Amino acid sequence: MQTTSILHPYGARRAALRNLLDAHRIPFLVVTKPVNIYYLTGFRGSAGAVMLGRDHQVLLVDPRYTLQAHDQAVGMEVAITRDGILATVAKMASRSGLPRAGFEDHHLAVSDFEFLRKEGRPSLRWVAAGGMVEELRAIKDAGEIEQIRRACGVTAAAFEETLRRVKPGVRELDLAAEIEHRMKKKGAEGPAFETIVASGQRAALPHGRASEKELQSGELVIFDLGAILGGYASDMTRTVFLGLPPRRVRRLYRAVLESQQQATAAATDGATAKAVDATARRVLQSYELARHFTHSTGHGVGLEIHEQPRIARSEKSRLRPSQVVTVEPGIYLEGFGGIRIEDTIVVGKDDPEVLTLASKDHWILD
Amino acid sequence: MQTTSILHPYGARRAALRNLLDAHRIPFLVVTKPVNIYYLTGFRGSAGAVMLGRDHQVLLVDPRYTLQAHDQAVGMEVAITRDGILATVAKMASRSGLPRAGFEDHHLAVSDFEFLRKEGRPSLRWVAAGGMVEELRAIKDAGEIEQIRRACGVTAAAFEETLRRVKPGVRELDLAAEIEHRMKKKGAEGPAFETIVASGQRAALPHGRASEKELQSGELVIFDLGAILGGYASDMTRTVFLGLPPRRVRRLYRAVLESQQQATAAATDGATAKAVDATARRVLQSYELARHFTHSTGHGVGLEIHEQPRIARSEKSRLRPSQVVTVEPGIYLEGFGGIRIEDTIVVGKDDPEVLTLASKDHWILD
Repeated sequence: MQTTSILHPYGARRAALRNLLDAHRIPFLVVTKPVNIYYLTGFRGSAGAVMLGRDHQVLLVDPRYTLQAHDQAVGMEVAITRDGILATVAKMASRSGLPRAGFEDHHLAVSDFEFLRKEGRPSLRWVAAGGMVEELRAIKDAGEIEQIRRACGVTAAAFEETLRRVKPGVRELDLAAEIEHRMKKKGAEGPAFETIVASGQRAALPHGRASEKELQSGELVIFDLGAILGGYASDMTRTVFLGLPPRRVRRLYRAVLESQQQATAAATDGATAKAVDATARRVLQSYELARHFTHSTGHGVGLEIHEQPRIARSEKSRLRPSQVVTVEPGIYLEGFGGIRIEDTIVVGKDDPEVLTLASKDHWILD
Repeated sequence: MQTTSILHPYGARRAALRNLLDAHRIPFLVVTKPVNIYYLTGFRGSAGAVMLGRDHQVLLVDPRYTLQAHDQAVGMEVAITRDGILATVAKMASRSGLPRAGFEDHHLAVSDFEFLRKEGRPSLRWVAAGGMVEELRAIKDAGEIEQIRRACGVTAAAFEETLRRVKPGVRELDLAAEIEHRMKKKGAEGPAFETIVASGQRAALPHGRASEKELQSGELVIFDLGAILGGYASDMTRTVFLGLPPRRVRRLYRAVLESQQQATAAATDGATAKAVDATARRVLQSYELARHFTHSTGHGVGLEIHEQPRIARSEKSRLRPSQVVTVEPGIYLEGFGGIRIEDTIVVGKDDPEVLTLASKDHWILD
């Protein structure tokens, strides 16, 4: 029943988490990270908590979210609290009689944890269990891949339409607004992050925001954009040149493109993340450019714009089918500019599927 | 030198924080919350840490942010680290020889704190010091108020321009896109939150997102929008009716408007936050509507869309001049719809200054 699982995948995800909790002998987990709550229940409010275990399946929300929680969190018990989410979690966890409770230590703030600990029964032992939901989330189901594919489609289309407006005299800020507007008109809930348009020397900033600077002839321009659709993100970078690029710039572009293509080809089932990263660096080094590549090669994409797995120098984990990751080598030359090319891809048994299909060949806008 | 302090307010803010730290006998504070780092240094990267005390004034960033950190964090020592921000913090804190270090316990995750503790010198005592920078941030300086005023101006103008397009048959999603596009064209970096357009029964959700639903005649439509400008947020809500409202709806609208106006007038220097909240509820109760007002009356606005002070039932703190807050009573009737009216205001010695100047009188779109 593929269709059913795409429409109501939450039960299966909760079952998978219960198995993981059993394996770690954690009777129940308190989930406080909003994106994990959405993953497990379908509830998309900004505040709440989930208590999940063999005998627990409760979503706790405040009165603002009464209607929405009942509406979205199908198959969950919903409890409304006016006493504060964490105070109610502490009370319910204490009443459960169970000796241990897991919590998301990678997300819960120290002060919130101290509150939980003080409010709860002294004999209750809190177990750091952060990252379990993220572990499940790293492998996408069919419905998730379809959402990300749609988000990538919207992203590529918005970029290609905006490309016509990319010319000397236009402000970076206006191009970013144009891109985000087009993504929304195509159904995006919003940008996945603040759209980057960085031209000329500003392209040497790997995370430069769009500014009031006007584009000029003879400049490289980096566009880094993504959309959110059904909660899922996309991530894509393209670099263009205004005018006729000198030979040096052509060589730089070729180096980054080759690095990006070879690293993408290396992202197959069973490859270590660090091997993919090394592939990207090796190609750049063959052009003596590796020292200008100052960040990691990629990251998982899903409900968060940066999630597991990381594709970086020291990451020994192996890629697996149905992981969705970016491949995004870039080089940055202070005082000159930068080039980055990035796709969002799905790791498969063989070749990965590239989801962000905007052209990389039409980079010369003359 | 007013102009200088608006352009380079960071030194004064760091001096104020040092005084606060001295008062709490904390030799230095490790600041990890990005928006607090921006407030203290001008650096707007998404990752980094600040160590600030009598003998410390360092911004730690990873190599991605080398150029940007030197560019933005004027007057700070900048240290670049490849070993991970927190590992370097632990090393520097340990080397300092000081007995205690403060950390932001309301922001730092439990797992990050455990890492700091393990990596650091065992004799170093970590002191929970979350909320100190937020305490300073609650009172805005002249430059901050000017930024928020501009963000509010952009917000009101984008709304009023979009109002012409608000008619039966238009999708909520398209109006949200239109609003965000217009805010960006006017200089906003982006929306301060996902723009809410909730029509008909969906207006009964206090936090309903814009959906594919088309507006219909005879419906209430809630617009909740804000812009980010120079890092500072605005927040405004207006409700309109499509067609000629029946007497019941006119009465509901009058009730919320009166509640919003009286609560705004009550937000003066020295008033307790809970008194302002009570004013909003009292007016609604005179219409027997208080039970439909299911959230608090307002919140501070600044670098975050929700910050200090909260304006809620049990908040005893007193409002002070140069605080910027929202006043936003609303009523929600399941199966019928909702009405909310919200302004961002500056608390003054006497009457507050309303920053979101879009009309509340032209709410009938007939």
